[in-house]
Amino acid sequence: MVTPQRIYLDYAAATPMDERVIAVMRPYFSELFYNPSSPYGPAREVRQAIDGARAKLAMVMGVKPDEIIMTAGATESVNIAIQGVMAEGGHLVTSSIEHHAVLAAARNYDHTLVAPTEKGVVTPESIKSALKPETRLVSVAVANNEIGTIQPLRDIAQILEAERERRREQGEAAPLYFHSDASQGAGVISLNVARLGLDLLTLNAGKCYGPKQVGLLWAHSHVRLRPLIVGGGQESGIRAGTENVAGIIGFAEALNIAETLRRQEIERLTDLRDLLQAKLTDAFADMEVSGYLKRRLPGILHVTWPGLDAERVLYALDMQGVLVATGSACAANKGTRSHVLVGIGMSPERADGSIRFSLGRHTTEEEIMEAARIVIDTVQRERSR
Amino acid sequence: MVTPQRIYLDYAAATPMDERVIAVMRPYFSELFYNPSSPYGPAREVRQAIDGARAKLAMVMGVKPDEIIMTAGATESVNIAIQGVMAEGGHLVTSSIEHHAVLAAARNYDHTLVAPTEKGVVTPESIKSALKPETRLVSVAVANNEIGTIQPLRDIAQILEAERERRREQGEAAPLYFHSDASQGAGVISLNVARLGLDLLTLNAGKCYGPKQVGLLWAHSHVRLRPLIVGGGQESGIRAGTENVAGIIGFAEALNIAETLRRQEIERLTDLRDLLQAKLTDAFADMEVSGYLKRRLPGILHVTWPGLDAERVLYALDMQGVLVATGSACAANKGTRSHVLVGIGMSPERADGSIRFSLGRHTTEEEIMEAARIVIDTVQRERSR
Repeated sequence: MVTPQRIYLDYAAATPMDERVIAVMRPYFSELFYNPSSPYGPAREVRQAIDGARAKLAMVMGVKPDEIIMTAGATESVNIAIQGVMAEGGHLVTSSIEHHAVLAAARNYDHTLVAPTEKGVVTPESIKSALKPETRLVSVAVANNEIGTIQPLRDIAQILEAERERRREQGEAAPLYFHSDASQGAGVISLNVARLGLDLLTLNAGKCYGPKQVGLLWAHSHVRLRPLIVGGGQESGIRAGTENVAGIIGFAEALNIAETLRRQEIERLTDLRDLLQAKLTDAFADMEVSGYLKRRLPGILHVTWPGLDAERVLYALDMQGVLVATGSACAANKGTRSHVLVGIGMSPERADGSIRFSLGRHTTEEEIMEAARIVIDTVQRERSR
Repeated sequence: MVTPQRIYLDYAAATPMDERVIAVMRPYFSELFYNPSSPYGPAREVRQAIDGARAKLAMVMGVKPDEIIMTAGATESVNIAIQGVMAEGGHLVTSSIEHHAVLAAARNYDHTLVAPTEKGVVTPESIKSALKPETRLVSVAVANNEIGTIQPLRDIAQILEAERERRREQGEAAPLYFHSDASQGAGVISLNVARLGLDLLTLNAGKCYGPKQVGLLWAHSHVRLRPLIVGGGQESGIRAGTENVAGIIGFAEALNIAETLRRQEIERLTDLRDLLQAKLTDAFADMEVSGYLKRRLPGILHVTWPGLDAERVLYALDMQGVLVATGSACAANKGTRSHVLVGIGMSPERADGSIRFSLGRHTTEEEIMEAARIVIDTVQRERSR
């Protein structure tokens, strides 16, 4: 029996590691395996390699290397950002369509969830009206991981700057920080934090062709953070534990490759995504496309067929080698309805008829043509049952 | 120029990854890279591979797979154990010679640090006298990572069982849990938790020829833990974040190899360590050996030359390719005196004249003979300055 060629269209859930990333990590497994905190020469070489990787990561964001806290992925980064800032008290503003890590961490603090528009836009006005004098942190992801809407971070940052100005004038001392999870933005959005107007930024190696369970939190040196994990004093005392030497070096390589390819990938993925969207739109007059179509991640297409049982379609596609998602991997696993689709006001019936296609670096036009054919055929068959 | 062959004698700080471990991890980097929470077939295969690895890890400890929380290393495991248990209040007992992660986490709670004997033994009597009716957690590492003393965990467990019995009789409801960091014990001590009498156990892949930043916390199902990192609900809701698929699979392989080799390695390392100790003792009449010589990790030799500047010796040895430690890597990096040596009552002058040799799987008799020759020569030269 021949295994059919798989067409992977779930890059938002996980990305394969780039072979170049694996190659730069390899020496640090069994040759340069030394503890970077050990004092002898070979260990100092390892320390230098980490420092070099940190500097490469910093360059992409336009930040100082010592402002970067290496973590075990975006979930930990988000938790350090939220718990680390909110430990000193105050109020938190975020949106109802953020990642589970943000929502779960927010729950322990006084917080306001703003509702996005039906296209998934978290508007500056909604943030403005949620701000209180004691608001200490605002957290909005650069883009939604299900429907792909890119958020107006710079406009939100202006609102926050106006509030800071107001506090200064009033003699109020409470700081106001802006955090964004940019895991879905690596390689498709500029990560320059000054341009985005951020104080804290989360990134995830596992979403940009690097290793899983490797991430970072950038925090501007003016941000006061309480550590979650204490011990040997690594990562400027904010996050203890012997460094993931290979992981950090791999992450730097992965992010740099993603940054180098960014312009061409945005164009290529947009074309392929639009091709898939056009094929499906042609075949189904009643199919709806979610998200803010003018500012969407180039690789994401989220569609709804009212009345369809998308989960059945997902498994039928799986049998034919086409791998897609009905929601984020976390939610899918628990059999719960996507809080993002609920959050943008989609009816349960429509939410249950939704599929997310997410394209990535290895997606080809041939794959898109073949996937479109299989999806159209499968949805038509499912609807005629 | 020929680089001299290195003799690595700092296995307690870091271990090189076993090539077999790298081999089992490799497919999960770029082929089976799927998010284990995704619903399609190939992702379910990845989930099964993690489950299989978890079952293999559980077998070594004699526990249920779903009682294992995968973490980013021992420091995180220790933090979850201490913060997760102590979040509900109560008192904590630990010793003054525990790892920095334990001491730093303990600092946030009502706690008692018991003093060990001058051989580094944390006695059951000292634990007994530190217990209070509200003591909720006792944390003692299986062995000290600097001087190698193996702790009498079973005897301590009996003390705790007597205290639990007392509480039951008095109708006191406060639970009393026993945690141990066994990072230094993998491959040289039985990790059977029932035999050790534990409720929680920490392990570290990076110390047993597995990947860095991979660890686990086993917690008996009766232990109530509050999560540190929240989000997508992974690891039974105790530790969120997309799983380190390759890391977990590598850890299981590493621990199983270590367990398979355990008996022969204990014997081999003990012989080599005793050989090194004999050579050095023969050469230096005033050299002191630290730790409890009757129950010591087989691969650890900690010695003191009163009046020696051990740091100078360390760098001189480094120049000759012999890699050793003057303390734990964390402390060494900060230029502070080892809290372990202070804790066992060693004078500053003696502590500053101390070197730790830690042997491991690749240590050979030839290396030990050569290292002994170089160390003797170097220490003699340094002392005659």
